[in-house]
Amino acid sequence: MRIARFSIDGNVGFGVLEDGELDVIKGHPFAEFERSGQKVPLDKVRLLPPVLPNKVVAIGRNYAEHAAELGNAVPDVPVTFFKPSTSVIGPGDPIAYPSFSQEVHHEAELAVVIGRMCREVPRERVKDVILGYTCANDVTARDVQQREKQWARAKGFDSSCPLGPWVETGLDPADIAAGLAIQCTVNGEQRQLGRTSDMVRPVEDLIVHITEAMTLLPGDVILTGTPAGVGPLNVGDEVAVTIEGIGTLTNKVIKRG
Amino acid sequence: MRIARFSIDGNVGFGVLEDGELDVIKGHPFAEFERSGQKVPLDKVRLLPPVLPNKVVAIGRNYAEHAAELGNAVPDVPVTFFKPSTSVIGPGDPIAYPSFSQEVHHEAELAVVIGRMCREVPRERVKDVILGYTCANDVTARDVQQREKQWARAKGFDSSCPLGPWVETGLDPADIAAGLAIQCTVNGEQRQLGRTSDMVRPVEDLIVHITEAMTLLPGDVILTGTPAGVGPLNVGDEVAVTIEGIGTLTNKVIKRG
Repeated sequence: MRIARFSIDGNVGFGVLEDGELDVIKGHPFAEFERSGQKVPLDKVRLLPPVLPNKVVAIGRNYAEHAAELGNAVPDVPVTFFKPSTSVIGPGDPIAYPSFSQEVHHEAELAVVIGRMCREVPRERVKDVILGYTCANDVTARDVQQREKQWARAKGFDSSCPLGPWVETGLDPADIAAGLAIQCTVNGEQRQLGRTSDMVRPVEDLIVHITEAMTLLPGDVILTGTPAGVGPLNVGDEVAVTIEGIGTLTNKVIKRG
Repeated sequence: MRIARFSIDGNVGFGVLEDGELDVIKGHPFAEFERSGQKVPLDKVRLLPPVLPNKVVAIGRNYAEHAAELGNAVPDVPVTFFKPSTSVIGPGDPIAYPSFSQEVHHEAELAVVIGRMCREVPRERVKDVILGYTCANDVTARDVQQREKQWARAKGFDSSCPLGPWVETGLDPADIAAGLAIQCTVNGEQRQLGRTSDMVRPVEDLIVHITEAMTLLPGDVILTGTPAGVGPLNVGDEVAVTIEGIGTLTNKVIKRG
């Protein structure tokens, strides 16, 4: 099932996507919900970030070829950092090129959407705390990342976390481990292509690792690392992240106003 | 003026502290508000974290003697990292010793509470975006911090960000630069003592630096670094952060349940 968050005529809601239409949800997708039967055509709405995360917890260097392309080793312990809620944008929203960087990179990533409050999740229970999956772009000011020891500015600037286009609830960690194609194109040209089966640490391990330290809340998002092929974005570029079985997240890069 | 957030009989509110009583606020402190004249004795309420930050942006190595005590240089660019909202606790709330660390340290810090949404704040306008100041403890799993390249787990675990006891609105960046005593005691014994005038970078510079990259929201909190004297906390310890002109934030360390 694909659950989108959308606005139309000033109203915001969630809907289940079927045959190009959204069946509007009564309630919200983190609890039992009913479909209202009220349908809205997908091409009449503005899609929003599919969730409003309280926090985004991201993992670095989780694909060996990507670690190598930036001259890094695969770390003994997952590299774990935050992107703030103010960095989140939705499908079609502009990525505003930050004033303090001259080298902004795309990083296509599988995003895990948390469905329930959880802490110290045992490996075998990870499935139960996941609502579903969406596409993410861990947009990174590479030059700033190289200059600054901690990455709050390099990876936390406004609009550096596109999420969408919707949450696919029909996948589970075994599907991710079996391998979904994950691709990034810029202006239609392929830049990144990998498979989620190449993750150094699978989704279960990441969630065990994170929740050993901190509580996750419904709507929180885990970014699972990017495959090889990262590269620069320029003003005017259109960047698209496509994940097999989920969909495509497209954003345009604009000059910051 | 000192503005506290509190609960009593299941109700949550803000109040202005005067003569040991809280004058309950109509509305909330981020806009124009009136005092209701309804008074509640301070010793009858439970104080809560004075704000519920969307994000806490923290600065590392902002006191030269503290950088030196851990063998670090003062960085060319401020070390900037996040603590998530799930790490925030209030005065009197327990710090739960995390299961994945054997060396948890106190770090007494001055916290700046943001009063209005802002981005790319010019130096001369910083005063306008600040609601006030409170005390913070940037509780850190030092062993994890040394093992993990990014500090999300080491400084973002549940209960690692005590804030309080209230927001003091009567100070401004000039008072901070002139120097307020900042002290940390453990079980009544002094561990840290510094002056805010010893910050490598003053409050204005930090807010310019952060908002160059990201939007701050009302209630967001900036931690401004810790003076020398950091050291271990153990289960059963009572740790208190006192800042001149603000007050004392006290928390007890417990075994994680």
